[in-house]
Amino acid sequence: MPTTSALSPVASPTGMTPGASAVLRPIGVDAARVTGGWWADRQRQISEVSIPDGRRQLEEAGNLDNFRIAAGALAGEITGPVFADSDVYKWLEAAAWEYARGHDERLLADQLEATGLVAAAQEEDGYLNTVIQVRGDRYRNPARDHEMYCAGHLFQAAVAQSRCTGHDELLEVALGVADHLVRTFGVTKREDVDGHPVVEMGLVELYRQTGRRDYLELASYFVDARGHGLSARYGGNLSYLSDRVPVREATTVEGHAVRAVYLAAGAADVAVETHDAALIATLGTQYAAMTAAKQYVTGGLGARWEGEAFGDPYELPSDRAYAETCAGIGAAQWAWRMLLATGEPSYADQIELLLFNAVMPGISLHGDEYFYVNTLHLRQDSEADNERSAAGGRHRWFDCACCPPNVMRTVAQFGGYLATSDDSGLQLQQYAPARISATLPGGELTVAVSTDYPWRGRVRVVVEAAPDGQVDLAFRIPAWAAGATLDGAAAEPGTYAHVRRAFHEGDSVELELPLQASVIHPHPRVDAVRNCIALRRGPLVYAVEQVDQPAGTVLDDLRVDPAVPIEAAYRDELLGGVTVLSLPLMDRRGEAFTATAIPYYAWANRGIGPMRVWLPTA
Amino acid sequence: MPTTSALSPVASPTGMTPGASAVLRPIGVDAARVTGGWWADRQRQISEVSIPDGRRQLEEAGNLDNFRIAAGALAGEITGPVFADSDVYKWLEAAAWEYARGHDERLLADQLEATGLVAAAQEEDGYLNTVIQVRGDRYRNPARDHEMYCAGHLFQAAVAQSRCTGHDELLEVALGVADHLVRTFGVTKREDVDGHPVVEMGLVELYRQTGRRDYLELASYFVDARGHGLSARYGGNLSYLSDRVPVREATTVEGHAVRAVYLAAGAADVAVETHDAALIATLGTQYAAMTAAKQYVTGGLGARWEGEAFGDPYELPSDRAYAETCAGIGAAQWAWRMLLATGEPSYADQIELLLFNAVMPGISLHGDEYFYVNTLHLRQDSEADNERSAAGGRHRWFDCACCPPNVMRTVAQFGGYLATSDDSGLQLQQYAPARISATLPGGELTVAVSTDYPWRGRVRVVVEAAPDGQVDLAFRIPAWAAGATLDGAAAEPGTYAHVRRAFHEGDSVELELPLQASVIHPHPRVDAVRNCIALRRGPLVYAVEQVDQPAGTVLDDLRVDPAVPIEAAYRDELLGGVTVLSLPLMDRRGEAFTATAIPYYAWANRGIGPMRVWLPTA
Repeated sequence: MPTTSALSPVASPTGMTPGASAVLRPIGVDAARVTGGWWADRQRQISEVSIPDGRRQLEEAGNLDNFRIAAGALAGEITGPVFADSDVYKWLEAAAWEYARGHDERLLADQLEATGLVAAAQEEDGYLNTVIQVRGDRYRNPARDHEMYCAGHLFQAAVAQSRCTGHDELLEVALGVADHLVRTFGVTKREDVDGHPVVEMGLVELYRQTGRRDYLELASYFVDARGHGLSARYGGNLSYLSDRVPVREATTVEGHAVRAVYLAAGAADVAVETHDAALIATLGTQYAAMTAAKQYVTGGLGARWEGEAFGDPYELPSDRAYAETCAGIGAAQWAWRMLLATGEPSYADQIELLLFNAVMPGISLHGDEYFYVNTLHLRQDSEADNERSAAGGRHRWFDCACCPPNVMRTVAQFGGYLATSDDSGLQLQQYAPARISATLPGGELTVAVSTDYPWRGRVRVVVEAAPDGQVDLAFRIPAWAAGATLDGAAAEPGTYAHVRRAFHEGDSVELELPLQASVIHPHPRVDAVRNCIALRRGPLVYAVEQVDQPAGTVLDDLRVDPAVPIEAAYRDELLGGVTVLSLPLMDRRGEAFTATAIPYYAWANRGIGPMRVWLPTA
Repeated sequence: MPTTSALSPVASPTGMTPGASAVLRPIGVDAARVTGGWWADRQRQISEVSIPDGRRQLEEAGNLDNFRIAAGALAGEITGPVFADSDVYKWLEAAAWEYARGHDERLLADQLEATGLVAAAQEEDGYLNTVIQVRGDRYRNPARDHEMYCAGHLFQAAVAQSRCTGHDELLEVALGVADHLVRTFGVTKREDVDGHPVVEMGLVELYRQTGRRDYLELASYFVDARGHGLSARYGGNLSYLSDRVPVREATTVEGHAVRAVYLAAGAADVAVETHDAALIATLGTQYAAMTAAKQYVTGGLGARWEGEAFGDPYELPSDRAYAETCAGIGAAQWAWRMLLATGEPSYADQIELLLFNAVMPGISLHGDEYFYVNTLHLRQDSEADNERSAAGGRHRWFDCACCPPNVMRTVAQFGGYLATSDDSGLQLQQYAPARISATLPGGELTVAVSTDYPWRGRVRVVVEAAPDGQVDLAFRIPAWAAGATLDGAAAEPGTYAHVRRAFHEGDSVELELPLQASVIHPHPRVDAVRNCIALRRGPLVYAVEQVDQPAGTVLDDLRVDPAVPIEAAYRDELLGGVTVLSLPLMDRRGEAFTATAIPYYAWANRGIGPMRVWLPTA
């Protein structure tokens, strides 16, 4: 029987053993809670709309029936892609995180009912994969069949259930699957890697949950076995399968974007738990290369529809941006692990960029429709020739439904990204109204954060409880926040600003992040957006959507004068409340008009029409 | 037994019945022969290198063994894609055309031997498709299985064999297959269309060869049955399968580029043979929409790797241009049919653009290596993650080997594109040293053309024989040829210039096409090449290749001043003899250097490295 280990990992987006080589420690979602504002709205939507609707979609699409069929409780044919089980596991994980936030007992009952379906389908020897069980060909083609991929998502869901609900039913299933993997794969057993990474992260979390070193060792094996072409015998593209270059030798990211960032995140988990500084350094090099030449201004990742892949350096077309919602999520997971490992605030900047501009554009403001692909440009005559085409608008669900439950689990666990701690104090990594507690060596530190971020840049922190002695309260100063001040003193962008002193109940600290609308110029090697600008204000990247422009304007023909000032105004009635930017544009005939830009995350919520993130200059 | 019909179609890239609704008539390759210069060099290479090597490749890749296996003459498994037979048929067609040109009896023997392999595999009832015969599931999935696609290529090869060699062995096989199709498909029989058009062109040629109206009627059915979603029952993307919009309702091209242009070419064949002016007009609208917004400056077609497809209007990325060699060939076939149907010289301009800049870049100067995809931009750090990636250079053959034999048949039949005739005289459509005869109402007109085209713009035509009375000798004046003169008189670009008089042996006419290096500006909606220029001289589009530039220059960072004059110089020793262009460029630090541009068709013949067609302006 599984038992939650003495390690007691916190309910954070990633656990961390006490001995791990990490500069910062996570704070669980029970200790860091969003109390209002933008993120609270989105979490409420996930709770009220997305998760219940997701349950219905999984029923309608047959994912849940697959478990009933595999258990022998239902007659019928397995439906959906080979990785259909993983959508259920991500939904289970989302429900667990949401329970930790909202303590909705009906949701927990639903979660446990679905857990029961999963458990009933597991075979005697621990193996579990409904598609393969019915097909009857275990591990015949690991490059294609996603058995370990599904297992990895199961493991993540299982630890979330244990940490967030106290129930270990799914963990019990997960350990059976994990033990089966441990018996099957490894240097002295069968040498193979899954075609889609994620099991690495899952196995390390199982290790953190149970203390079972064989799980960490298998994760470590899967990280090091990649890049030697084990997948070649199954055909397929080694770059796509993250199997062309060994993780320790790679200097950038390549291939299928989600696979690449999931693998890197799992490698970071292995590195901190095995005290592998060289691997962390290598992953840092890869992350830097990705941001320098393979990431969209929105944070989006994946420039190619073909293979859902990273392109060559500086190959970043706006119109055919893939920027899969799941890739943004995976990159945030990677950045989070790098943040803990290194304490570098740039990784928290990345999480902010990714969540606001690469992940949340993937879900509608109503919480019930999704984008799989997040384009940066939609033309007026674009054809919806694919269920993922932007021209077809948002969709309720997809044949390949990886993104919707992935967004749900990410939003539900957002509190876990708010802050970190170390022995000296607390680091505020993301800004939102919140209540955050950290257990420091001298005792508990609790702070209340109030702010109108991302619309206003003032962040006020009031201490509710503090240990005796000096405490370091650190604030991430985003790299874009020129002119930031902390209690009136200048704060350097791209660093942490610290207030280190004894704190008492009622003490307050005030951070001011100037949210100026500003113009972003692309790297000159990005051919696709030569002589264009993009707009940002604080953490938000903006888009110009046809619906906001005067009648008769044609977005495809507009030109902007980047020297003209941009005005910002908060509009309460628009898109749930957003700060819009106004700027003068011209059409092809040179006629000027005032254009309105909205936050990119909010586009395609009033029907579908032309949209641009990058604006050509006159 | 098949018999060549009384229609006696000429051995041209497309036949034409006497009653067809066409403004111009084709001239067969026996009557229009290249006698020297650029095209003669390429035809010699096809003859000496490509066709013999292609025979070996088809043997090594197993395509020919598939026929032996299907015939029961060899044990073994079928190899290659489901359309493997079509590569053999295209090679057979190329060999037939080449025999008409070179009369190499050994080649004819090879061609007939391969014909025998094909004939031996045919089933009693006429059905022939080696992959499906061995699999045993005829017409189970027409959207996927390419049975009619293979049949179409068989028909084209069969008529080429009959017209070029006088042998009817392959025609006999083809008629068996065609009769099987006629018995199987149609409004009152089984309603289906093939996932990949080409059978339409093939059936019309069989009609032209035999006079069998049921072949024309079946072709007509296949044209009209498309666009009503017959393929939907088999899954797949209707746009990709050219089955989303009825041919008569489409206003542009979409989906898989090769499928789209093959279908349009077949529809044009049906239209002229059924006197369907409305269909020709619709196809003209589609062609114009394609050139306006979906064609690269090189003539290349297909902006997306995903689905090998046309993109949205103005979606024309240089770096991820697909521009499949076969799509260029298919478009030339479509343009040829439109030229005959309408007499519009713009279609002959298209054929010239396509052949020089979209088709011939797909074969190496040695004739033994190919590009499947013709990129317009290769960066220095590009990764070869696919056998079609430009970064991997040219290849001897491909797993999907549609392009190599397609280039062979196109080059071998080039003479057929040189000229057309009508009752009043002869139209010179393409310029090359040649001897061309046309049978006019008053008798035979024969001319000898001498020129150094495409390096020099002087074209001299000497009459060798002429009928009595007035003859109209017409010269296509390309749309780019500002300042052209015919016998010293100004000739309007984009029209035919005529000399209409009585001709006698020894009379000559001289055309002068000014071949000025010139700058092309992109349409302002083409985001991918905003503020860039391309270079052309006469019919050739140019490229800047790293190998020609001074050491230390980085193509990805260069900038050009479009106001600075471009110099042209012929270099005999370079790339088989080419006119190069010299122009001043700057690198990122503002340092100037003189760059050399070569004809795009000649790139990637000295190893593989960075290349640009579109050059960013300073």
